[in-house]
Amino acid sequence: MVKLVALYRTPAEPPDLEHHLASNHIPLLREYPGLRKIEITRITQAPIGESSFSVMAEMYFDDRDAMDRALSSPQGKAVARDLMAFAPDLVTLFHGEVTLP
Amino acid sequence: MVKLVALYRTPAEPPDLEHHLASNHIPLLREYPGLRKIEITRITQAPIGESSFSVMAEMYFDDRDAMDRALSSPQGKAVARDLMAFAPDLVTLFHGEVTLP
Repeated sequence: MVKLVALYRTPAEPPDLEHHLASNHIPLLREYPGLRKIEITRITQAPIGESSFSVMAEMYFDDRDAMDRALSSPQGKAVARDLMAFAPDLVTLFHGEVTLP
Repeated sequence: MVKLVALYRTPAEPPDLEHHLASNHIPLLREYPGLRKIEITRITQAPIGESSFSVMAEMYFDDRDAMDRALSSPQGKAVARDLMAFAPDLVTLFHGEVTLP
């Protein structure tokens, strides 16, 4: 299993981010072909380090190929366009392999 | 459900971090009282933003009270001591509420 993780910093006007995520962006994320699971976390506190993250979105796929296909699909491009329109300077994006120890 | 998230930056000597996590730290994490799930992600690529994260550990609890009890338990203090001994400048720690949209 692999996952794509988007960490959003708190913007100058926080309600705008949450509203856009809920009403526009998360519905788009759900359209990723091959999406196995989505998990949204509202960040409540940061005891150590970078403290300005407010939301984390995690999208799970079977493997790296499935994720790559999703990202390059028309639905994936719509997600990317939306992201670049509403949060280009707020988001940190990374992906990785879920390895249960 | 709430989760505690630890994001580790890539250290100067990467094998040390992974070795310590696997052999010492993750076994300690498993001892948290009330831990419902643990998920370890090996970060493979960061297309946007902060690109120096290498590992993410997520620990799930039933609610905020359960997480607080785990963190303040003897096992939680052992985790904190270990973290401060091996990665005080590598870790970003935050917690949040898992809200499925």
